[in-house]
Amino acid sequence: MGCSPRRFLGVKPSRAQMLFPFLLTFLLVGGEGESTAMDHVSTERLAEESHRQDSANLLIFIMLLTLTILTIWLFKHRRFRFLHETGLAMIYGLLVGVILRFGVHVPQNMSDVVLSCAVNASPATLLVNVSGRFYEYTLKGEVSRGKGHQVQDDEMLRKVTFDPEVFFNILLPPIIFHAGYSLKRRHFFRNIGSILAYAFMGTVISCFVIGLIMYGIVSFMKVVGQLGGDFFFTDCLFFGAIVSATDPVTVLAIFNELKVDVDLYALLFGESVLNDAVAIVLSSSIVAYQPAGDNSHSFEAMAMLKSFGVFLGVFSGSFALGVATGVMTALVTKFTKLRDFPLLETALFFLMSWSTFLLAEACGFTGVVAVLFCGITQAHYTFNNLSPDSQDRTKQLFELLNFLAENFIFSYMGLTLFSFQSHVFNPMFIIGAFLAVFLGRAANIYPLSFLLNLGRKNKIGSNVQHVMMFAGLRGAMTFALSIRDTATYARQMMFSTTLLIVFFTVWICGGGTTPMLSFMSIPVGVDSDQDNSNSAVLDGSQRRNTKHESAWPFRIWYTFDHNYLKPLLTHSGPPLTATLPTCCGPLARCLTSPQAYENEGQLHDDDTDFILNDASVSSMYADVTVSTDASGHTINRSSNTRDGPSDEGLDHELALAEHEVAIRGTRLVLPMDDPVEAPTTVTLPPPPSPPRSEPRRHRL
Amino acid sequence: MGCSPRRFLGVKPSRAQMLFPFLLTFLLVGGEGESTAMDHVSTERLAEESHRQDSANLLIFIMLLTLTILTIWLFKHRRFRFLHETGLAMIYGLLVGVILRFGVHVPQNMSDVVLSCAVNASPATLLVNVSGRFYEYTLKGEVSRGKGHQVQDDEMLRKVTFDPEVFFNILLPPIIFHAGYSLKRRHFFRNIGSILAYAFMGTVISCFVIGLIMYGIVSFMKVVGQLGGDFFFTDCLFFGAIVSATDPVTVLAIFNELKVDVDLYALLFGESVLNDAVAIVLSSSIVAYQPAGDNSHSFEAMAMLKSFGVFLGVFSGSFALGVATGVMTALVTKFTKLRDFPLLETALFFLMSWSTFLLAEACGFTGVVAVLFCGITQAHYTFNNLSPDSQDRTKQLFELLNFLAENFIFSYMGLTLFSFQSHVFNPMFIIGAFLAVFLGRAANIYPLSFLLNLGRKNKIGSNVQHVMMFAGLRGAMTFALSIRDTATYARQMMFSTTLLIVFFTVWICGGGTTPMLSFMSIPVGVDSDQDNSNSAVLDGSQRRNTKHESAWPFRIWYTFDHNYLKPLLTHSGPPLTATLPTCCGPLARCLTSPQAYENEGQLHDDDTDFILNDASVSSMYADVTVSTDASGHTINRSSNTRDGPSDEGLDHELALAEHEVAIRGTRLVLPMDDPVEAPTTVTLPPPPSPPRSEPRRHRL
Repeated sequence: MGCSPRRFLGVKPSRAQMLFPFLLTFLLVGGEGESTAMDHVSTERLAEESHRQDSANLLIFIMLLTLTILTIWLFKHRRFRFLHETGLAMIYGLLVGVILRFGVHVPQNMSDVVLSCAVNASPATLLVNVSGRFYEYTLKGEVSRGKGHQVQDDEMLRKVTFDPEVFFNILLPPIIFHAGYSLKRRHFFRNIGSILAYAFMGTVISCFVIGLIMYGIVSFMKVVGQLGGDFFFTDCLFFGAIVSATDPVTVLAIFNELKVDVDLYALLFGESVLNDAVAIVLSSSIVAYQPAGDNSHSFEAMAMLKSFGVFLGVFSGSFALGVATGVMTALVTKFTKLRDFPLLETALFFLMSWSTFLLAEACGFTGVVAVLFCGITQAHYTFNNLSPDSQDRTKQLFELLNFLAENFIFSYMGLTLFSFQSHVFNPMFIIGAFLAVFLGRAANIYPLSFLLNLGRKNKIGSNVQHVMMFAGLRGAMTFALSIRDTATYARQMMFSTTLLIVFFTVWICGGGTTPMLSFMSIPVGVDSDQDNSNSAVLDGSQRRNTKHESAWPFRIWYTFDHNYLKPLLTHSGPPLTATLPTCCGPLARCLTSPQAYENEGQLHDDDTDFILNDASVSSMYADVTVSTDASGHTINRSSNTRDGPSDEGLDHELALAEHEVAIRGTRLVLPMDDPVEAPTTVTLPPPPSPPRSEPRRHRL
Repeated sequence: MGCSPRRFLGVKPSRAQMLFPFLLTFLLVGGEGESTAMDHVSTERLAEESHRQDSANLLIFIMLLTLTILTIWLFKHRRFRFLHETGLAMIYGLLVGVILRFGVHVPQNMSDVVLSCAVNASPATLLVNVSGRFYEYTLKGEVSRGKGHQVQDDEMLRKVTFDPEVFFNILLPPIIFHAGYSLKRRHFFRNIGSILAYAFMGTVISCFVIGLIMYGIVSFMKVVGQLGGDFFFTDCLFFGAIVSATDPVTVLAIFNELKVDVDLYALLFGESVLNDAVAIVLSSSIVAYQPAGDNSHSFEAMAMLKSFGVFLGVFSGSFALGVATGVMTALVTKFTKLRDFPLLETALFFLMSWSTFLLAEACGFTGVVAVLFCGITQAHYTFNNLSPDSQDRTKQLFELLNFLAENFIFSYMGLTLFSFQSHVFNPMFIIGAFLAVFLGRAANIYPLSFLLNLGRKNKIGSNVQHVMMFAGLRGAMTFALSIRDTATYARQMMFSTTLLIVFFTVWICGGGTTPMLSFMSIPVGVDSDQDNSNSAVLDGSQRRNTKHESAWPFRIWYTFDHNYLKPLLTHSGPPLTATLPTCCGPLARCLTSPQAYENEGQLHDDDTDFILNDASVSSMYADVTVSTDASGHTINRSSNTRDGPSDEGLDHELALAEHEVAIRGTRLVLPMDDPVEAPTTVTLPPPPSPPRSEPRRHRL
């Protein structure tokens, strides 16, 4: 998942390119006419020197990460909670940034000798004739007039500043894939309606609210004379788009560690994962919206529509692509006996997931979005086909990649506050931005929650709303989007402001989450669906039989998925011969894996496991709510705010329905037409012993 | 382990550099004077286009790897042996190369418009003034006069050609680290003397023999008029150095799969791992040897001595650095309770190993060599401190990285045969090179084996020598060294020839290994130290009590390591309080981990495990030799060629001695002065039940 193709594939017109970068400087400084051997040697020496410098710079980051890991361990060991590890990484980054900025003075590199050469045009490639020999030059970019000298200001700081594309092509993909791969799908799908509302509508609302407020502030600044450059309305909207993305990294880490209420967790995490995708597509749509050749940056209905079309196209394209490669991996792992060789299997899994990213980028879609849905699909289908060994390997691999990338990004954020050399800190803009971000988040959460509560049986309580408001941390995605383009004054000011917003939300909001949760009487310590929960045996009396408001499209999908997709793509689920019409018999037999028939008898279905655990959670949940408030508040869970166990109950019913389907086996030909509608009132006890033959199976 | 710093750290003078590469071409082609917005949009579109192209190119490689994995599975599934997976990867690479070369015709990219600009000098950075705006250009390299047009010959082929540094900075480190980390240390150290002789002396001999033969051939070619450019004596030596490196990848894979005789395996694998390191340092010493400013490339005693000094300095520096970081990781993992968090532990392990590479490169040593010794140290010490979970994780991680990198390199090799555009195939040179490689290998193996056999009790049989001669495959390292610099005619001819040598050895020698082994009556199917061997119970009668000829320095080291280093650096081994003199009591107590005291009673020592398995191997070995010859030859293992079980016996004695040491525990204050010397004649049965509490522990 993620070595940047742009970095990776070196364009190589001349094989000697690595060796010559410093040769000519040498000629310029040391005179001309030396022999080839001499040139060659000195060239190699200079190239080597530069390589050493690069290694040393990268070493700084590795050391930073090592230090962070050790401190994280110390924090975990001593159970410090006031600062999260990502906040810690940022602090270390800041410190190193200060040292690099003010402490280290690297002597100016001689290779930076600049020669002004006046020609009429500037192509991408330039051939320069120096005393009879030709040298090839490539265009690096435009140099803004004011920065003629500043460009080569500090070699060291320049070198530790990464190419922003590294974030999009190397660091973000593993993080986002991991988010999808480790998504707790059950909770996610139960709240899918609300999550989609927050992620899509909410982010768009937030984007426009922030954009409008910022436009007001920028207009005011222009009047007051505080603005040092152009700042168009599209820039404001762009700013709105990038700061609307809440961060799954910190949310995942904090809330997972605290074992907070599963529905709040699902809402927050689901929203933050999806709105990253939305923010990427939204911001690129806004850039595309910019009317071609029109300098006014005014509002245009057609361009607006077009950019909406771009948004939909890119999003659905990326979605389809991610799902498609996931499905393909599932098919490959199902129909080959690759599971006999875990190494090959893991490698294939890794490569297919990475190719999703590349394929999406190659098709002009958004790789990160595709990777997210690929991760979800892989977890839902492919994971069931993998050997237990590969299941562990893939999870651990992506966990590690995610951990490294995440900490790297956060240390880097700290570092850039000092190493980035074009910061524009404008107090008025910053204050305005904080205000706008706050209001934008409020305009996302409260109105949408109100609307959603109209339809939801399981209401989103006002305390949950406040926590969602508070926990809207900005992180890696916001940073990556803002550092992607810092060419203009507007973008530089945005970048500096964004950096401060990220610092503030990660340190203050992130650190304040635990007190906030107890203040808002949100239960923590809920051991959601850990399989090692010791309350696997449960009595059926605690389940209630209410219906979930957004359940019906989900339920149709669920049945379809369970009866057709799972058996087709994985080894689990009922055999296709049982679910497909009899006319498709030969095809069904051909597509059903032998394991499915075996599983049939044993009820060895993944989802059944899931739901059984779910039921166990719901009973646990009832036990836990009173006892686990850290600060000693008595928790008063009024039934109007949320009646939590109800949808667990529903899920359980779904499971029972399926269970019946599975029991009826091959005799049941077509359990379609909303088959789960009928048994919703059944309150059968769960199957006596939960299938525990493969304990790793359902820990996703 | 391995993202290239040179690729990774983008030097960023202007933040907009990613966006502008195509802008100016557009200006040039489409006229001038459009507005900024227009430029910006078209720029972004062009940059996006290029990014897409890059993604698509990288996708080709991913697809290639995926295809290779599936075919490998098919081969393993059907138990095909005639072609190894690396050979397979090369064939796929070749096919894709042919398709890219002859099938795909990408329209010429407009960004390649070349403008000749005549100036007096050529610095590394050029500022070009185009109608009032400044653009920055960087030097890419010199363009040879004849190739003025050829440079931009085929965009597609150029793009799939990687920067050679990618091999050294991204692909080789994980392979070499894995080789060190998975080295079977017991067999390795038992044959350390012979391995060092083959790797150091043998490689130098081979290098000079090949260099001299090639110089003869090149001189003849010059007389005949077959030579199209300069080819100096140092070039010949350089060629000798790069083709002297035998490949551990294929050797490891083929011999490990065949479960060949452990000593042959140790010799071949140890030699090929170490001679990679030797070849790297040797070739860079030869480049440094090149007398400065002297065009004659003649032989000079001083320069020769100097380059020998460089060789020694670089090698020992890299060695020390690799060991130092390994030891540091061991200390960190020992004295923190990091093992409670396997993710943190694995991340730390990974980062420390990677930092070895970077540190070595930053200090001017050879990263790959440092990484090899770091891997060995990590396996020997740090591995014992890791939690079982991390032990699995690290092994699997590096196994995966190794697998991917290895297959990538081999597919890429196949690809370059067609995608590389400056091939120089000279039949005379090629035939000469094959002859020289053959003779060089012979001059390495046979004389050294003869000399070594004078000292060895456990002789290296002539059949083993023939196999070593035959299995000297050239692979990844030879390729990487030859592609590193292809600027001159000599280097291009070397590269093309090297490619053919690699193809030949991997396909013919690699594929012929199995028949060769049975023809040479080398037993296969020896399940060396797999822990799941079912013959853990053994009788002590089969062990013989001969002494290993190179044992004494090894044994001193072994005792020192076991008594002081292991207890200091790991949780295993006897407590330091037992082994250090009493005067160091407080220090020893402070440095000894609590686990060491616990282990003391349980005999839970890693090495003991190892040796117990070893003894079981020796018994198995005796059973297996007659029965496992595939081709039906009756195996006649004459006792003069080698008496295999003897040194297993010795090892077992060592283990028993240690065993006693461990039993005597704290009462034994100083078991120094070659304590293993005394009980060499003891033929005690092994401890009744092998310690199997942590089955993962000794699978290294």
